[in-house]
Amino acid sequence: MSDNASLVGGGVTLFELVAALPHGGDAVLHGNPELVIARIAPLELAGPGDIAFLSHAKYAQRLDTTQASCVILAPEQLARAQSARQGDLSAAFVCTPAPYLYFARLTQWWKARQDESAPSGRIHPSAVIDPSASLHPTARIGALCVIGASASVGEGTTLHARVTLASGCRIGARCIVHSGAVIGADGFGFAPRADKSWEKIEQLGAVVIGDDVEIGANTCIDRGALQDTLIEDGVKLDNLVQIGHNVRIGAHSALAGCAGVAGSAVIGKRCTIGGGAVVLGHLTLVDDVHISASTTVMRSLLKAGNYSGIFPVDDNASWERNAAHVRRLDASRDQSRAQMQALQRRVDQLEASVQVLTNAQRSQT
Amino acid sequence: MSDNASLVGGGVTLFELVAALPHGGDAVLHGNPELVIARIAPLELAGPGDIAFLSHAKYAQRLDTTQASCVILAPEQLARAQSARQGDLSAAFVCTPAPYLYFARLTQWWKARQDESAPSGRIHPSAVIDPSASLHPTARIGALCVIGASASVGEGTTLHARVTLASGCRIGARCIVHSGAVIGADGFGFAPRADKSWEKIEQLGAVVIGDDVEIGANTCIDRGALQDTLIEDGVKLDNLVQIGHNVRIGAHSALAGCAGVAGSAVIGKRCTIGGGAVVLGHLTLVDDVHISASTTVMRSLLKAGNYSGIFPVDDNASWERNAAHVRRLDASRDQSRAQMQALQRRVDQLEASVQVLTNAQRSQT
Amino acid sequence: MSDNASLVGGGVTLFELVAALPHGGDAVLHGNPELVIARIAPLELAGPGDIAFLSHAKYAQRLDTTQASCVILAPEQLARAQSARQGDLSAAFVCTPAPYLYFARLTQWWKARQDESAPSGRIHPSAVIDPSASLHPTARIGALCVIGASASVGEGTTLHARVTLASGCRIGARCIVHSGAVIGADGFGFAPRADKSWEKIEQLGAVVIGDDVEIGANTCIDRGALQDTLIEDGVKLDNLVQIGHNVRIGAHSALAGCAGVAGSAVIGKRCTIGGGAVVLGHLTLVDDVHISASTTVMRSLLKAGNYSGIFPVDDNASWERNAAHVRRLDASRDQSRAQMQALQRRVDQLEASVQVLTNAQRSQT
Repeated sequence: MSDNASLVGGGVTLFELVAALPHGGDAVLHGNPELVIARIAPLELAGPGDIAFLSHAKYAQRLDTTQASCVILAPEQLARAQSARQGDLSAAFVCTPAPYLYFARLTQWWKARQDESAPSGRIHPSAVIDPSASLHPTARIGALCVIGASASVGEGTTLHARVTLASGCRIGARCIVHSGAVIGADGFGFAPRADKSWEKIEQLGAVVIGDDVEIGANTCIDRGALQDTLIEDGVKLDNLVQIGHNVRIGAHSALAGCAGVAGSAVIGKRCTIGGGAVVLGHLTLVDDVHISASTTVMRSLLKAGNYSGIFPVDDNASWERNAAHVRRLDASRDQSRAQMQALQRRVDQLEASVQVLTNAQRSQT
Repeated sequence: MSDNASLVGGGVTLFELVAALPHGGDAVLHGNPELVIARIAPLELAGPGDIAFLSHAKYAQRLDTTQASCVILAPEQLARAQSARQGDLSAAFVCTPAPYLYFARLTQWWKARQDESAPSGRIHPSAVIDPSASLHPTARIGALCVIGASASVGEGTTLHARVTLASGCRIGARCIVHSGAVIGADGFGFAPRADKSWEKIEQLGAVVIGDDVEIGANTCIDRGALQDTLIEDGVKLDNLVQIGHNVRIGAHSALAGCAGVAGSAVIGKRCTIGGGAVVLGHLTLVDDVHISASTTVMRSLLKAGNYSGIFPVDDNASWERNAAHVRRLDASRDQSRAQMQALQRRVDQLEASVQVLTNAQRSQT
Repeated sequence: MSDNASLVGGGVTLFELVAALPHGGDAVLHGNPELVIARIAPLELAGPGDIAFLSHAKYAQRLDTTQASCVILAPEQLARAQSARQGDLSAAFVCTPAPYLYFARLTQWWKARQDESAPSGRIHPSAVIDPSASLHPTARIGALCVIGASASVGEGTTLHARVTLASGCRIGARCIVHSGAVIGADGFGFAPRADKSWEKIEQLGAVVIGDDVEIGANTCIDRGALQDTLIEDGVKLDNLVQIGHNVRIGAHSALAGCAGVAGSAVIGKRCTIGGGAVVLGHLTLVDDVHISASTTVMRSLLKAGNYSGIFPVDDNASWERNAAHVRRLDASRDQSRAQMQALQRRVDQLEASVQVLTNAQRSQT
C-alpha cells in the first residue's frame, strides 16, 4: 500500500507489538516473533511488512490471497489462514476472540508511538483562555482555541485547534474535541411578540460533558435555557452534528455526521443515530434505539430497536412517477375503494339475479 | 434544581425584579414583594427561591404541585394557582397577559445582571480586523474573530469568538453572531467547461444583514455572485445553517439548525423553516410560510400556510416493506387498474348474460 | 442596480475588457469599443454602464428590454439583441459560443483587477504553522489558520481565514479553501467493547487533495483510518459538507451544501450531489452519477444517470393523510389484494352458475 501516516519509522517486531498491547493476555501469536512490522494496512491491500486484521468471517476468503506479514484474527479462522500460507515463514497470526477490538487498541499504541517525538507543550500559546477557566494539568489545548469564563476541562482531555468552549461549560476526563467544534453557544430560544417578531430568551444554562466523550469537527452543542445540556460518559459525536439546548444524550450513544437533535430531546444510553438523521424536540428515545441515516424521528420511541424512514432512491423518472403517486395516495385510495364497492354492489346484484334464475329453473324442472 | 448558570449571586427581591422589567406595566404581582428569588427554573422542577412560568394552559396542573416561590402566569390561571398554594406565604404570582414573553424579558434582565461583573473590553485583542473595516464603538468583537476589508458592524452588535465577517459584508445593529459562523464566503458558482471540468465564477457581491438578527454557531451565509445576499431585520438563524448566494430572507423569519437554502431562493417575512429542511435554488416562498423539519421544498410556495414532506419513521421491518411498495407504486397502480378493469369487463359480460337469461325466462313464463 | 462589490473603480473600456480575457479569440465585440463598463450585473437588472450575459435562450426576451451597455451572448441571439437596441449607440454585444463560461472568466479578471490594491502579504502573521509544514512560496494562508506537522500546501493555493489543515494532510495547486473548513480531523471509527462502550480506532491515514479543488466554509474532510482520504483534481465542495474517512471523490465532481458522504464511499468522476444529500458508507457511485438534493443513496449506483429520492412537499393536511397511507402501504396492499381475490372468486362462481343456467336453458329450447 502507499506510503502514509500509518507507517512507523524503523518498524517493530511482532514480539514487541504483542507484548505492548493492553489485554494482550487473551491474544496468542502464531509465527515468528522476530518478524518486523512497519505498517497497519487493510487486509485486501496488505503486503510484506504489514499487519492487518480480519473482522468478519464473510471476508475470510481474503486470507487465501493476502501477503500480509501478520493477520489478527479469531481462533476459528486460524486453520484456514495457516493452510493458505503453509510453509511461508514470513507469515504470522495473532489469535484473539475480538480481532476488531484488538486492532483498535493496536492503532492506539501505534499512534502513541508515532507521537513520542511530538512536542509536549500542552496549552498552545495562541489559545485564548479566560483566567477563571479551570484546566486540568494534563489537558491539551490546541492552537487558537477559545475557553470562556469558569469553563473547565478534565484530566487528559484534548481540545484540537480552533475549538470554542464557552463560559461555564464543563468537559470531563479523557475527552477529544475536534477542530472547529463549538460547545456552549446560545440555544435557539425566542418568544413571539404580538407583531410576530422575536424576543430573545437568554440561555442561562451551560453544557456538561462526561468522561471519554469524542466530539467531531465543527459540531455544535448548545447551552441549556435554564438547566444544562448533558452529554453523558462515552458518547461519540461525529462532525457537523447539532445538539440543541436542554438535550440529554445517554452514555455510549453515537451520532454520525450531520445528525441533528432538537431542543429538550432525551436520548437513551447506547443509542446510535445515523448520518443526517433528525430527532425533533421534546421527544424521548429509550436506551438501545438505533436510527438509520437520514431518518426523521417525529415521535418518541419507547421501545428499543431499529427504526428507519427514508424515501428510497431511484432513477429520476421512476422516482417522479412514484412520488406523484405518493402525493395522491389518499385520493387514489378513496377512488379505488369506491370502484371496488361499486363492483361489489354489481356482483351482489348479479348473485341475487342468478339465485332468482336458478330457483325459477328448479321450479320449472 | 441543580446549581447552574441561571443562578444570580445573592438573589433579588420580587419587588426589584418586577420593577426592573420593561413593559412591566401590564404585569401585576400577587404576593409578598420581599420574597427573594435566586434562580429561574422550569415549573416542573422549581422549588423555593425559584421563579418559573406557565406558558400553556395544558400544563396548568403543574400549578397544583409546584414549590416555586413565584410563577409567571396569565390572569385566567391565577385562581387555580392561588388555590393550590392557599395560606402559603412563600408563594407569589406575576400576572401578565403574555407569560412567555415576560419570561423572555426576565432572562434578558437576569443575564445582564450576571454580566455586570464581566470585563468591559469590547474588541478582543486577538481578533484580526482589517484597518478598513468599520466597527460601531458599541460593537463587541470576540476572541479570534476575523473581519475583512471594508466590512462593517453596527451599533450594539456582538460577534462571539471565532466569527468570520468577510470583506465588504455589513451587519446591522443589535445583532448576535455565534462562534464559528462564516459570513461572506464565496457562493458556490461554477460554469461547466466543454470537458465537464468547472470554471469558477468569482463572487462579486457581499452579504448585507439587517438589525436584530441572530446567527447561530458554525452557520454560513455566502456572498452574492453579482448582487448581495440579504438577511432582513429580525431574522433568526440557528446553528449549522447554510444560506447560498443571492438568497433573500424576509424580516423575522426563523430557520432551525442544519436548514439549507440554496442560491437565489427568496423567502418571505415571518416564515419558519424546521431543522434540516432544504429549500432549493431560485424558488420563492411568500410571507408566513412554515416548513416542517427535514422537508425539502422543490417548488415555489405562493400561498401562506404549513407545509411538510417527511417519510414517516417506523420500525425497520415495516419501513422496508412500505418503502418497497413506494418504489413500485406506479407499477402496482397499473397492475391494480388492469385487474380492476378485467374484473369489470367480466361483470359487464355477466350482467349481459343474466339479462339474456332473465328475458328468456320471462318469455317462457 | 445597487452599489456593490462588483463595481470596478473608474470603469474599463470594452476594448480593454475583451482584450484582457483569456480565450478571447473566439469572442467578437459588436459595438463601440470605447464604451465604459463599471459593473457586472444580472441581465434583468442591468442599466447603463453595466455588462450582463444571456446564458439560456429561454431568457432571450430580456434582450428586448435591457438597458445594459453590453450583453455577452451566443451568436444566434445577436440579431434579436441588435434589433431591440437599433440605433442605440450605447449598446454593445460580445458574441461567444459559450456566454456563461465567458462570464465566469470575466468575473475572474474583474476580481483580480479589484484585488490589485490588496496587500500582498501571503502568510498572515496570525496563522499558526507547524515548522515542519511545507508551503509553496505562492500559497496564501489567511488569518488564524492552523497548519499541522508535515502538512503541505501547493502552488497558488489559498486558505482563507480560520482553516485547519491537520498534520500530514496535503493539498495541491490552485485550490481555494474557505473559512472554517477542517481538513484532517479524525474519522469516526470505534470498535464496540463487550459492554457496548466504544474503543477508539486511531485514524492513521491523512487527507490528500488534488489540484484546482475548492472547499466550502465549515466543510469537514476526515483523515483516513489506515489509507488516505482522496479528493481528486477539480472537485468542488460547497459549505458544511461532510466527507468521512477513506472516501474517494473522483475528479471534477461537485457536492452542494450540507451534503454528506459516509466513510469508505467511492464517488466517480464528474458526479454531482445535491444539497443535503447523503451517501452511505462503503458504496460505489460510478462516473457521471447525479444525485438530487436531499436524496439518500442507500445502494451502489453502477450506471451513470440521474437519481432522486425525496418525499414530495405538500400542505400539512395532505402530507399527513398521504404519509399515513405510506405507513400502511403493505397492510393495505394485502387488504386490497384479498378484496380483489374474494371478488374474483365470486365472479368465477357467477360465471359457472350462469354457464349452468345457459346450458339448461339451451337444453330446454
